[in-house]
Amino acid sequence: MSESGLPAGRRLTRRGLLAGGAVAAAAAACAPVSAVQEAAGRASAGRQTPLPGGAAVEPFHGVHQAGIATSPQTFAVFAGFDLRPGTDRAALARLMRLLTDDARRLTRGEPALADTDAELALLPARLTVTFGFGPGLFEAAGAGHLAPRPLPAFKVDALQPRWSGGDLLVQVCADDRVTLAHALRVLVRDARSFATVRWTQQGFRQSPQVRAPGTTQRNLMGQLDGTVNPRPGSPDFDRAVWVRDGWLRGGTTLVLRRIRMDLEKWDAADRAAKEFSVGRRLDTGAPLTGRAEADEPDFAAVGPSGLPVISEYAHIRRARVTDPGMRILRRAYNYEDGLSPEGRPDAGLLFASYQADVERQFVPIQRRLAEVDLLNQWITPIGSAVFAVPPGCAPDGWIGETLLS
Amino acid sequence: MSESGLPAGRRLTRRGLLAGGAVAAAAAACAPVSAVQEAAGRASAGRQTPLPGGAAVEPFHGVHQAGIATSPQTFAVFAGFDLRPGTDRAALARLMRLLTDDARRLTRGEPALADTDAELALLPARLTVTFGFGPGLFEAAGAGHLAPRPLPAFKVDALQPRWSGGDLLVQVCADDRVTLAHALRVLVRDARSFATVRWTQQGFRQSPQVRAPGTTQRNLMGQLDGTVNPRPGSPDFDRAVWVRDGWLRGGTTLVLRRIRMDLEKWDAADRAAKEFSVGRRLDTGAPLTGRAEADEPDFAAVGPSGLPVISEYAHIRRARVTDPGMRILRRAYNYEDGLSPEGRPDAGLLFASYQADVERQFVPIQRRLAEVDLLNQWITPIGSAVFAVPPGCAPDGWIGETLLS
Repeated sequence: MSESGLPAGRRLTRRGLLAGGAVAAAAAACAPVSAVQEAAGRASAGRQTPLPGGAAVEPFHGVHQAGIATSPQTFAVFAGFDLRPGTDRAALARLMRLLTDDARRLTRGEPALADTDAELALLPARLTVTFGFGPGLFEAAGAGHLAPRPLPAFKVDALQPRWSGGDLLVQVCADDRVTLAHALRVLVRDARSFATVRWTQQGFRQSPQVRAPGTTQRNLMGQLDGTVNPRPGSPDFDRAVWVRDGWLRGGTTLVLRRIRMDLEKWDAADRAAKEFSVGRRLDTGAPLTGRAEADEPDFAAVGPSGLPVISEYAHIRRARVTDPGMRILRRAYNYEDGLSPEGRPDAGLLFASYQADVERQFVPIQRRLAEVDLLNQWITPIGSAVFAVPPGCAPDGWIGETLLS
Repeated sequence: MSESGLPAGRRLTRRGLLAGGAVAAAAAACAPVSAVQEAAGRASAGRQTPLPGGAAVEPFHGVHQAGIATSPQTFAVFAGFDLRPGTDRAALARLMRLLTDDARRLTRGEPALADTDAELALLPARLTVTFGFGPGLFEAAGAGHLAPRPLPAFKVDALQPRWSGGDLLVQVCADDRVTLAHALRVLVRDARSFATVRWTQQGFRQSPQVRAPGTTQRNLMGQLDGTVNPRPGSPDFDRAVWVRDGWLRGGTTLVLRRIRMDLEKWDAADRAAKEFSVGRRLDTGAPLTGRAEADEPDFAAVGPSGLPVISEYAHIRRARVTDPGMRILRRAYNYEDGLSPEGRPDAGLLFASYQADVERQFVPIQRRLAEVDLLNQWITPIGSAVFAVPPGCAPDGWIGETLLS
């Protein structure tokens, strides 16, 4: 029995092309494929001269997957999938070959093999596609012992199943929202025979024409968010983010938390209270003991009252990690999903944290914050998921091959 | 009895500042205001040098409201409000004074009066705020005879109340999604005592770094969308868009239709069928009888079979308006609100059409399209609303004054 709901002809064609050899040669003669290829050719011929930002390509192949050390694009969507019953190790390998092929083409501005909206593929706009494996995928692959361990329960959590868990993660980022929508659509369609969509979470950051990529972003609470982050290319970054051995060598782990902000309550607080809670000024992002965003906080400084300038309970003190190689890489996006009739926004942060070791890096920080953090008055984690993010692949490889082949 | 749920002090302050004179002088001394002003001052002091796109300002004051002839920004949100019972003509005038004051400040990159997230106001990114009045607002103002007439029923409609109607429209557009979120939040908060949120619809277009503002956009079906549009500044534009007499002189009307696209079905169609339905090529946007997007379609051209090259039922023939002054101004945005478990996107177009006269311009076109349009196989209107869009105002005026003062 097949897990695919597609007509047999198309299924054969898609799979055939990926399997290589005789099947592929036979499949290449099929009408649907040549029609698609012809369409792609026509789409390329009609390509309008793109602006530089539209044509910008982030390399797909490499030791690491793109979309992690990549300077964050303006838009991200995180899609969590549940595997359909019967999707076994062999099926997973086919799925990942197929999705890798899609990602490889789309990220360089080419239509996917069965792309029926070829024109929407032509402006990659720094598109990246990043895959992550959740516990269920490891079970299905008969490799449960390698699965990422679930996070412990934190007392601040109010987790909802609709925003939590998932067997497979597809993270798509781009500087253009239409490019993003098209890429997601292609990937979801090709995953359909193997998996159903559990959740999608759309995120956004400030636009590049407003705030240069790489500079610290303001979140919806108005805070500069991500000041202390490992710098890509530095030894500390490599130590903090990339796994050094085993099947996951060159990969990392992603903790994705959906953190709702109570913006109503935040707005009702005065500026002094907000800054006291964070430990930084809202305008410059400088620590309360400094003048500029990059200044090191002076946690020993004492005010006229004899109390610490940066409270014992301030967010930046609680989140502090002294060893730079033990930091987490935050690559957060804002979300906003409508308003209640009374005008309360359903808004917050898609907190995406990448680290080599969840237990040693993420968990201790989150435990400290859950215990005491003045910011907890305004924020609540309502979704949570952990994924192993496999290493990148070579042009003739596929994402997940070190686990599934 | 007051319609406001705010503490009395704050309410007095906000209203007082808008009323001018003695009340304002008294109110200006109140602590909450000076605290906000101080915060705004600090925020300005800490303003990071914005990139050119962040600082770009669209003028708020003028004969017409901004956000109509304005080259479309990357993001739009349309928010429809229901007036609270008891919101009468005098209350409406206060509401519109308040919202005008917010819009005037925010669009030039200044915090609103009671803005508690001042930093998020500093990068206008071509922010515009445009107000529209629905039938219920006219009733509440005792001016029901001036209300825009509802659209007739079209046989293609599958309208849902959750996306239809509304007494007051606030349209916010900007090139930055965070700026947009903040502006919407301020406006919704200030409207809260007078109105509840009926719906919000978030839309996006291709990014300026991908496709230059003013060029034709691709929608989620991959079509170049908006090729035949009146050009701002031309006499035809003025004739097509702006009302020439009465209280609405210098204003216009907005028809906002939420048009769902069945992208699954669209993807299943082949390219020839798609192009035949539209009457244009998907790659270049050229009419099937031409070579470039701007070419005039030759509706008389006949193919080898003796049939018209552009079908009698093709979208561009059915939507055709020969008198340029009778065209409609389309300023559409894409929407995408998540996926079903099977991966079907809830996606389509927020079709925003501006015209001087709904009955003479919009209705005949829509009637022709509803009757026969091959595109109807893939698109369904699921929301609809009509608003009168008052003229702009002078620096000492407010939007709606020609109706409400």
